[in-house]
Amino acid sequence: MNHKRRLREARLALAGCRVDALLVTHLPNIRYLCGFTGSAGMLVITDQENALFTDGRYTQQAREEVQGAKIRIGRNSMSAASERFSRCRSIRRIGVEAEHMTVAQRNVLAQLLPAGRKIVAQSLVVERLRMVKDPEETSKIRAACRLGVELFDRLRRVAGAGVPESEIAAQIEFAARQAGAEQMAFPTIIASGSRSALPHGRASPARLPARGFVVCDFGVILAGYCSDMTRTLHVGRPSQEARAGYEAVREAQQAAVEAVKPGASVGEVDQAARNALSKRGLSKFFTHSTGHGLGLEIHEAPRVGADQSELLRPGMVITIEPGIYLPGKWGVRIEDTVVVTEKGCDILTSCPKDLIAL
Amino acid sequence: MNHKRRLREARLALAGCRVDALLVTHLPNIRYLCGFTGSAGMLVITDQENALFTDGRYTQQAREEVQGAKIRIGRNSMSAASERFSRCRSIRRIGVEAEHMTVAQRNVLAQLLPAGRKIVAQSLVVERLRMVKDPEETSKIRAACRLGVELFDRLRRVAGAGVPESEIAAQIEFAARQAGAEQMAFPTIIASGSRSALPHGRASPARLPARGFVVCDFGVILAGYCSDMTRTLHVGRPSQEARAGYEAVREAQQAAVEAVKPGASVGEVDQAARNALSKRGLSKFFTHSTGHGLGLEIHEAPRVGADQSELLRPGMVITIEPGIYLPGKWGVRIEDTVVVTEKGCDILTSCPKDLIAL
Repeated sequence: MNHKRRLREARLALAGCRVDALLVTHLPNIRYLCGFTGSAGMLVITDQENALFTDGRYTQQAREEVQGAKIRIGRNSMSAASERFSRCRSIRRIGVEAEHMTVAQRNVLAQLLPAGRKIVAQSLVVERLRMVKDPEETSKIRAACRLGVELFDRLRRVAGAGVPESEIAAQIEFAARQAGAEQMAFPTIIASGSRSALPHGRASPARLPARGFVVCDFGVILAGYCSDMTRTLHVGRPSQEARAGYEAVREAQQAAVEAVKPGASVGEVDQAARNALSKRGLSKFFTHSTGHGLGLEIHEAPRVGADQSELLRPGMVITIEPGIYLPGKWGVRIEDTVVVTEKGCDILTSCPKDLIAL
Repeated sequence: MNHKRRLREARLALAGCRVDALLVTHLPNIRYLCGFTGSAGMLVITDQENALFTDGRYTQQAREEVQGAKIRIGRNSMSAASERFSRCRSIRRIGVEAEHMTVAQRNVLAQLLPAGRKIVAQSLVVERLRMVKDPEETSKIRAACRLGVELFDRLRRVAGAGVPESEIAAQIEFAARQAGAEQMAFPTIIASGSRSALPHGRASPARLPARGFVVCDFGVILAGYCSDMTRTLHVGRPSQEARAGYEAVREAQQAAVEAVKPGASVGEVDQAARNALSKRGLSKFFTHSTGHGLGLEIHEAPRVGADQSELLRPGMVITIEPGIYLPGKWGVRIEDTVVVTEKGCDILTSCPKDLIAL
């Protein structure tokens, strides 16, 4: 990964934010900028230098991983960072990550800084850089998604009436690990029967029914990058209503995928899915956003939701995942991860979306 | 779980904090207080009522899970919660969770509230309640730790020279899932050879060497509660130096466990481990705290570290995990989870700590 280029871009962003330094506290942002993957640390970016502050647990790891920033080992990263700010008189306005710094951290920093220094809340500075993936990142996400598709093959072989949801999750998680995944990107969702109406129904001890939907939503982290996909299977013969519901979601998902292209807003992509469901009178059962960015984190900017105005650019990676949920009855969701190209998008989780009856 | 009692205790805590309401935004705190396990929501506690604000994805789930609080479904929990505050004139001072609320959330809340309402940063109000586990919680942590010990048996059977660290992790994670664990409590650490000197060396594709230490640190989440344990194995015949290092850590761990009793401070427990290592001239290689509380989260209050003054009380659950790390060479850590009893403590992860040579 080209961390030095990323740090240069972050430094350029400082000027636009009218701050003299940026204190990066969100770990995925730190990883993105300098490569450090430890669980504690802060990165300071100034005009003069970049420095990663972390503690004694990470001395060796930081030396192996960090690029483009000096390494400072100490007991307390916040006081070390604020000392850094205090020493340099030209640093007067210090940007902090408003979406990640806690009120408590801010209060500590404010007490540590000498008079005349101002803490300036910044919004999503690094996230905006991260939104457009570089080719190395895209290829990592592509590899993670390819593994996701392989896991779905395994899932199909394991799933069947009477099998516990958690057993299906166990099998694909094991296969993921054996294929080199560091961990799952989020708790695996295997939601069957009436549980399929729970948009976030984590795999439970419940057994797959003799007849009904099974929403399968899972992702891996492979070489640091996430995959995300959902397919909905049906155990037994689907009813007319179930079949119609499935086809409606499939149409909506297709419509949204077709709306993805450079210059389109994420709100338009969301609207495309919603319009398709409206035609079938089903949009009121679509109770979440159409998708989200993903990369080092499973949820990144942009949010693909109603009234969101971010314009798509080549290299952005987002999910397209409309669903409908009839409380107490059933639910269906279909999700792909796509990368925006010059003309439209590439589906990274390409595997069939026809209704599969087990 | 007795959520109504917990909510009563939280309400009592409001008076001590001199606030008229508490806005709980940290999800594990919300789960602790009212049972809701969704991934988005806020809980408002006032003298008059408790209300959980969440979105349409969680309508059904909230109805099934929430106890002791009204459920309010809407698009934006923060604006719904602030409306709740605005409607009630007697609510003038609103407590927020300083360690969890972000600067951005605080700014949004400040803009939404009418004049005359004050946001008051509160520190660890719910965490203090959570520190002492009730019997139902202790029995869940005990069950999670029992599963952890079973996994270690499996780990011993799988581990050996040439086996990839990630394969060992895959095997115990699979066994955990099949035994009913929802997920691992943290990324499994299997750090072998010179990687054992990384205190947080996640399982990598590296193969276990023919001779050297393997630090194995893992935990499950079972029925919502975490386990945590570390054992360090040795592949092949340990050198004199390795054996001496292992025994020193074992003595330090034993000394710290023996220091755990009601009325002792967590700082004294930490000091006991450090003193034992000092006698062997090894304390400079002990680069982290002795332990931490655990429960719904893998890291909870209290931190068992130097200069920490929290006094132990029966029902607290903490880890005791000293270790030494010689950069580029090797590392050893031994960890148990213990519950404080009337007279001392019970080890919940009881399995042998003699040096095992594979």
